[in-house]
Amino acid sequence: MHIKVAGTYIGKFGELWEQSLSDLLKEGLREVVKDAQLPEEAIEAIFVANKAAGSFNEQRHLGALASEQFAYQPPAMRIEGACASGGLAVAAAAQALMSGLYQTVLVVGVEKMTDVSSAVASAILATAASREKEYGSTFPALYSVLANYHMHHFGTTRRQLSEVVVQNHAHALNNPQAQFHKALTVEQVEASPLVADPLRLLDCSPISDGVAAVILTTRECSRQTTLLGFGQGQDTLALMDRADLGSLQATTRAAKQALARAGVTRQQIQAAEVHDCFSIAEILAAEDLGFFAKGEAAGNLTTDRSPVIFNPSGGLKACGHPVGATGVKQIAFLSREIESGRFDLALAHNVGGSGATAVVSILGKTT
Amino acid sequence: MHIKVAGTYIGKFGELWEQSLSDLLKEGLREVVKDAQLPEEAIEAIFVANKAAGSFNEQRHLGALASEQFAYQPPAMRIEGACASGGLAVAAAAQALMSGLYQTVLVVGVEKMTDVSSAVASAILATAASREKEYGSTFPALYSVLANYHMHHFGTTRRQLSEVVVQNHAHALNNPQAQFHKALTVEQVEASPLVADPLRLLDCSPISDGVAAVILTTRECSRQTTLLGFGQGQDTLALMDRADLGSLQATTRAAKQALARAGVTRQQIQAAEVHDCFSIAEILAAEDLGFFAKGEAAGNLTTDRSPVIFNPSGGLKACGHPVGATGVKQIAFLSREIESGRFDLALAHNVGGSGATAVVSILGKTT
Repeated sequence: MHIKVAGTYIGKFGELWEQSLSDLLKEGLREVVKDAQLPEEAIEAIFVANKAAGSFNEQRHLGALASEQFAYQPPAMRIEGACASGGLAVAAAAQALMSGLYQTVLVVGVEKMTDVSSAVASAILATAASREKEYGSTFPALYSVLANYHMHHFGTTRRQLSEVVVQNHAHALNNPQAQFHKALTVEQVEASPLVADPLRLLDCSPISDGVAAVILTTRECSRQTTLLGFGQGQDTLALMDRADLGSLQATTRAAKQALARAGVTRQQIQAAEVHDCFSIAEILAAEDLGFFAKGEAAGNLTTDRSPVIFNPSGGLKACGHPVGATGVKQIAFLSREIESGRFDLALAHNVGGSGATAVVSILGKTT
Repeated sequence: MHIKVAGTYIGKFGELWEQSLSDLLKEGLREVVKDAQLPEEAIEAIFVANKAAGSFNEQRHLGALASEQFAYQPPAMRIEGACASGGLAVAAAAQALMSGLYQTVLVVGVEKMTDVSSAVASAILATAASREKEYGSTFPALYSVLANYHMHHFGTTRRQLSEVVVQNHAHALNNPQAQFHKALTVEQVEASPLVADPLRLLDCSPISDGVAAVILTTRECSRQTTLLGFGQGQDTLALMDRADLGSLQATTRAAKQALARAGVTRQQIQAAEVHDCFSIAEILAAEDLGFFAKGEAAGNLTTDRSPVIFNPSGGLKACGHPVGATGVKQIAFLSREIESGRFDLALAHNVGGSGATAVVSILGKTT
């Protein structure tokens, strides 16, 4: 795959009361083109990642909304796969480039979630679950099942969940775009209100507004990051249909495919942006991506014993989780880190639902 | 483009009170695989076209819902571009095949609209419009503007609008899957209730449930239809932002690109499934696709003077318009007509919004 990252943009994540969905989308398009130092006409197609603007903002057809921002009106489409929409849009864009029909495409992920109340947002998010929602299960409830299973079978402790949160908040202190710039202690995490036992408020990624964008190209490019490969795995929507609740198989499958396509080994990877929608999800990711044996990530992934740095951006937990933007932000953030020389090889991991879809992308310094 | 149509399925379109969204999706997946006489494992990826199941049916993440129907759980994603979702999903699938990453993929379009009242459905559909909806504009209102413009500038008559409807209902009599099997007269169309002057109830495509699917492959295939090319055009979401209301530029752009990629001329085409969400839309399509000079389609497209047969399926008007399914149905229907020897070269035209997105696909007998 000879796909280079020609431009990146990550807007400020947070509760952006002054900006509409359309404002965020326009900001992402305008700023990523500026970052790539390309004329608008260089953008041959646009892929928009968004989960639920139809419900959050009464606006569908975001492809057309994106396209009309450019005088040339390039072809555009929206990709949705719940919280994995961003990763999927990058995959669709890469496939479009590999088809040879396009040489330069733009991927923009956007979500404006605070136009509705938290209760309504929660109900909208649950529409990515399956018939589980008929029993009233929300995503915190589903991930609490995974957390309880993990604690029971692998001895993962409440403190180890908290350590993940503490690390992500520490990382976010260095990320100006992060929603939270607030160092947390284990004690603070554990004093936060219980949401779905054992998960507490500070185990959960927030409701966020935000936009992120990347420009991908097969043309000559002065930037130094290449999308080396991507992979996609699926699993059942409902946890109750799975044989094993100890891991997310979609992640394992996606990682295997991505590494094979990229032609690199797991051992070469230095950083990973993983999908920590809840603290337990980061522990599962660290294991299912193969960085730790099952049951070994908790207590280790936040220490020097970890083979990679997890969630240098602060992750979904502390950087924020504007759903459609998250997968694109991961790619944009890691590209910048590679560009800055901090890492040479990094992995992005984006999950939809409670692990029904996973997308893994591998980014490396252009050689 | 060496993409063959290896299988097709069109479910019964209509008010399907006995079937859920999930039932329809499963039916489409199961039946198209059966039609192609392929083992399930041959399906390497799935593209789901759907406009608004999040709002109609409280279910997002349809890619995962589709994937879990197959033991192999192929990668899947949902594509949305309002009423052009089906055409866009075929384009995304074709790009995935052309990338070389996949050899056989499945596209399924589905919409289950009758789970909500017509008033709610209308509000959901309007979320594909732009800020026009803030003024209370629904799609019939927007297309009535186009109809009035056309009547004023090109002398199109109320009777000519009715003739389009009458022809589509006549065609649907031969299509077992069509929602309506009812011949209509011009008088009946004109006696139907006014919706948005000059458009009457029988000028409008219905609210429908339905599923359609195709399997596309670059492998050897005994079927005789090839996807020769596709094109995509965009325009502003809002009519008020356009310089000219006499045509849909997105259609013109998409057609030009599709014909060029397919390497065929407009004169060779024998049949066209066009996006007649309203009677006026078929007249606009006939002109904007280049089959008639501007102002010449009305009064001619329903006669022997027409260079192509329009909407042999009955179109959106009489076959029905389960939004996400429509663009896929067009491809499936034309493939079957080509397979049966009725046509050698045909065109599908799928529009999103009031012409903000258009996708044109060209299908031909494999040579």
